[in-house]
Amino acid sequence: MKRFFKPHSVAIIGASDRDGSLGSHLTRNLLFGYAGAIYPVNPNYSEIQGLPCYPSAESIPGPVDLAIIIIPAPFVPDALEACGRKNIYRVIIQSAGFSEVGQEGRVLQERCTAIARSADIRIWGPNCMGIVDIPRKQFFTFMNPVVYRDGLIPGRISLIVQSGMLSAGFLADLMSERHIGVGKACSIGNKSDVDECDVLEYLLEDSETEAIGLYLESFSRGRRFVEIVERSEKPVVLLRGGKSETGAKAALSHTSSLAGNARLQEKLLEGAGVTIARDFQQMIELTRALAMIPGTPSRCRTAIITFSGGAGILSCDLLEEQGLRIAEFSAETMESLKQIFPAWMPASNPVDLFPAFGTRGPLEAYRYAFDAIVRDPAVDAIFLHYIVGFYGHFIDMREMKEAADREGKSLILWGIGLSEETRALRREAEKNGIPAHGEVARAVECLAAASRYEKRKQKTLKAGPL
Amino acid sequence: MKRFFKPHSVAIIGASDRDGSLGSHLTRNLLFGYAGAIYPVNPNYSEIQGLPCYPSAESIPGPVDLAIIIIPAPFVPDALEACGRKNIYRVIIQSAGFSEVGQEGRVLQERCTAIARSADIRIWGPNCMGIVDIPRKQFFTFMNPVVYRDGLIPGRISLIVQSGMLSAGFLADLMSERHIGVGKACSIGNKSDVDECDVLEYLLEDSETEAIGLYLESFSRGRRFVEIVERSEKPVVLLRGGKSETGAKAALSHTSSLAGNARLQEKLLEGAGVTIARDFQQMIELTRALAMIPGTPSRCRTAIITFSGGAGILSCDLLEEQGLRIAEFSAETMESLKQIFPAWMPASNPVDLFPAFGTRGPLEAYRYAFDAIVRDPAVDAIFLHYIVGFYGHFIDMREMKEAADREGKSLILWGIGLSEETRALRREAEKNGIPAHGEVARAVECLAAASRYEKRKQKTLKAGPL
Repeated sequence: MKRFFKPHSVAIIGASDRDGSLGSHLTRNLLFGYAGAIYPVNPNYSEIQGLPCYPSAESIPGPVDLAIIIIPAPFVPDALEACGRKNIYRVIIQSAGFSEVGQEGRVLQERCTAIARSADIRIWGPNCMGIVDIPRKQFFTFMNPVVYRDGLIPGRISLIVQSGMLSAGFLADLMSERHIGVGKACSIGNKSDVDECDVLEYLLEDSETEAIGLYLESFSRGRRFVEIVERSEKPVVLLRGGKSETGAKAALSHTSSLAGNARLQEKLLEGAGVTIARDFQQMIELTRALAMIPGTPSRCRTAIITFSGGAGILSCDLLEEQGLRIAEFSAETMESLKQIFPAWMPASNPVDLFPAFGTRGPLEAYRYAFDAIVRDPAVDAIFLHYIVGFYGHFIDMREMKEAADREGKSLILWGIGLSEETRALRREAEKNGIPAHGEVARAVECLAAASRYEKRKQKTLKAGPL
Repeated sequence: MKRFFKPHSVAIIGASDRDGSLGSHLTRNLLFGYAGAIYPVNPNYSEIQGLPCYPSAESIPGPVDLAIIIIPAPFVPDALEACGRKNIYRVIIQSAGFSEVGQEGRVLQERCTAIARSADIRIWGPNCMGIVDIPRKQFFTFMNPVVYRDGLIPGRISLIVQSGMLSAGFLADLMSERHIGVGKACSIGNKSDVDECDVLEYLLEDSETEAIGLYLESFSRGRRFVEIVERSEKPVVLLRGGKSETGAKAALSHTSSLAGNARLQEKLLEGAGVTIARDFQQMIELTRALAMIPGTPSRCRTAIITFSGGAGILSCDLLEEQGLRIAEFSAETMESLKQIFPAWMPASNPVDLFPAFGTRGPLEAYRYAFDAIVRDPAVDAIFLHYIVGFYGHFIDMREMKEAADREGKSLILWGIGLSEETRALRREAEKNGIPAHGEVARAVECLAAASRYEKRKQKTLKAGPL
């Protein structure tokens, strides 16, 4: 897999200079940040975007680690043969028009598989968007370059997506909202050779990836997948498409996937330690939370610091619904909290700071309460609420995160308020390793998932190796 | 109730010029857009923010319809007596420090109730944020004026919230994100006199309100509430706080609410036609969807137009999970769709337009597919997906909405992509009466709620009046 992710040189079969064409997007994307040699291939040009262009793969002067093919499907087999002759052993076929389009395409795909096998080529795709590696600025994809117009936020979670446009729309969303960082995003399409197991295994070994989120419409090798996630030391989150009858039918024509009994599979995978998601955004938020708050204990006695009594109450409801516990503060913490509350207001969890505004001001009260709670041995996690845009810049997140790490507590943040400021708050949380969410229920869900994940890991550890 | 919502003159008991104080916020908020007479009351000033200031309510020269009190709790009874002498029959007490803070506060609140009763005064509060009427720019609240810094989006849904900060944080969020409009937002606090039933009844008669969302920690008059929602002709959405044991305890000290058996209440209310929410943002989105897509039939045969096969598949899964049906297109529609798809791609629902990009271009294909589908008698609702920021400005929403209304179809939109552009898309959808969501599951949930609401209404109609 390494040569797919870290090639020294890349050939672009179907490079183009025509504005808006996929071949031109692909070329621009490679030029954007890829540090290796780039060889555009297209018999109609001698130069593309400042690079010398070659009529075929074979005419490229240097060695080529990876070829990316973006030409009409019927021409792909010939191109693949040329790759074989040039000793290119890794090929990403991004073109569509294969087994997802019926009998004719299926035949074409099988021809490609046969060519690849005899030439010892590994194929990624076809019908996919390829690989994006955000920390490396490597865009091996025909995705519209507008996606990284506003910059990139590198992160330590990686994605495997069996859908192209989806990963494009999603990455655009993630990158322009800029409050969840991503490492690698892998769109695997029809999986004629490289499948989710191959990519997942690679990412599990990848020191830059801390958790993996997947959107899959089928399992190529179900048993193998279960084996991999069972021994995975990194959290794996799965969103499964094609669970309904119509959804399964659509999946067949989308990525030529046979869905199988998806609900049964979900149960099985949950038992093997996979966290199940039900929507895209939720999948990403779950993956990030699992990466950011490892070791959240299963009892998860949670403290809530809030400016809104109502939000505190709803948080209790949702935490208990998810099986988490509301922390009962130690006598010391209670004594400490008393200092900032007016005499009539008994301190309790959730800590509604509103009545404490008078004595210390909102942010000073927040810091004081946090400092007391983070040291309480009866607390495992702190659910931070913040109403953004009214009380100035939120207290130092790095400091909070360091204190929480020192004390072995998990932090999770919910922010609501003025939108620009809320986005800034979430970006800062992301930077400092605190998962931040826009809805209370989502934050609770993520905390609960982290706690359940840890419980499963403990069980596996107790059971010991086979 | 009308004099609370549309007073000709307002006295501000506790007006202030001290920057950042609640009394100064309140004064600035009234000056922002309220068209009636404003009388600041504070013995320490002769003028506040350009208005003459009076030492007491009684010294105000003209008649006063409504007084808003924002002075420390112990001084409230005297102020209330002064209101009585001045013949002010409507008072909003925004000060905290009453029954939510224990025995002493309870006594204070009872004293206020007694004074009000003997002077024929109706009290709104105490411990609340008052009333915001966005279309009228009436801010009867001490909320920080920064909330409307970026302007306001008036809408036709109204909120009743038994929590102060929450409504502030929320309104800030709604107003600065600017893609969900709100009519009136009513924060009712401790409900010592005016309660959710009073306000709900008023809003049900209010021609400017199409649907009502509530956050409640208790029911003051449960039986009455059920009667009201049972005969309501407008959708009512309820988020109930204090369902868990700890949540209920916190509600007691938050707004002095006795929670009761919340889950049982939810069941009962659902039977009476109330839509149950589980988070704030979701509550708002549900309320708006119910207001925007009335008449969504219970079978709700849904068509999906998408650029992403994956998103289409997941939508099917979620729609079926919610009991909605995936529409089977008529032969005519199928024939029509064939025109824009390449020969190898059989048209089907979900309509994944990606393969049609080649023949017509993305937006032209979208418009073509929409026009065919909106006329199909086998379709009740269209779920519009759009990946924002790649294909230019989305097709004319007003036109789509008009066509849908003409054909009696419901529209719902999911947009993902570049964040600025996505926000703009959602604002435009809002303006044109199309509910727009940021997550597929949320959109499906809202469509399902609209369809269930209609089913209940049909049943009631069949049963006829008592």
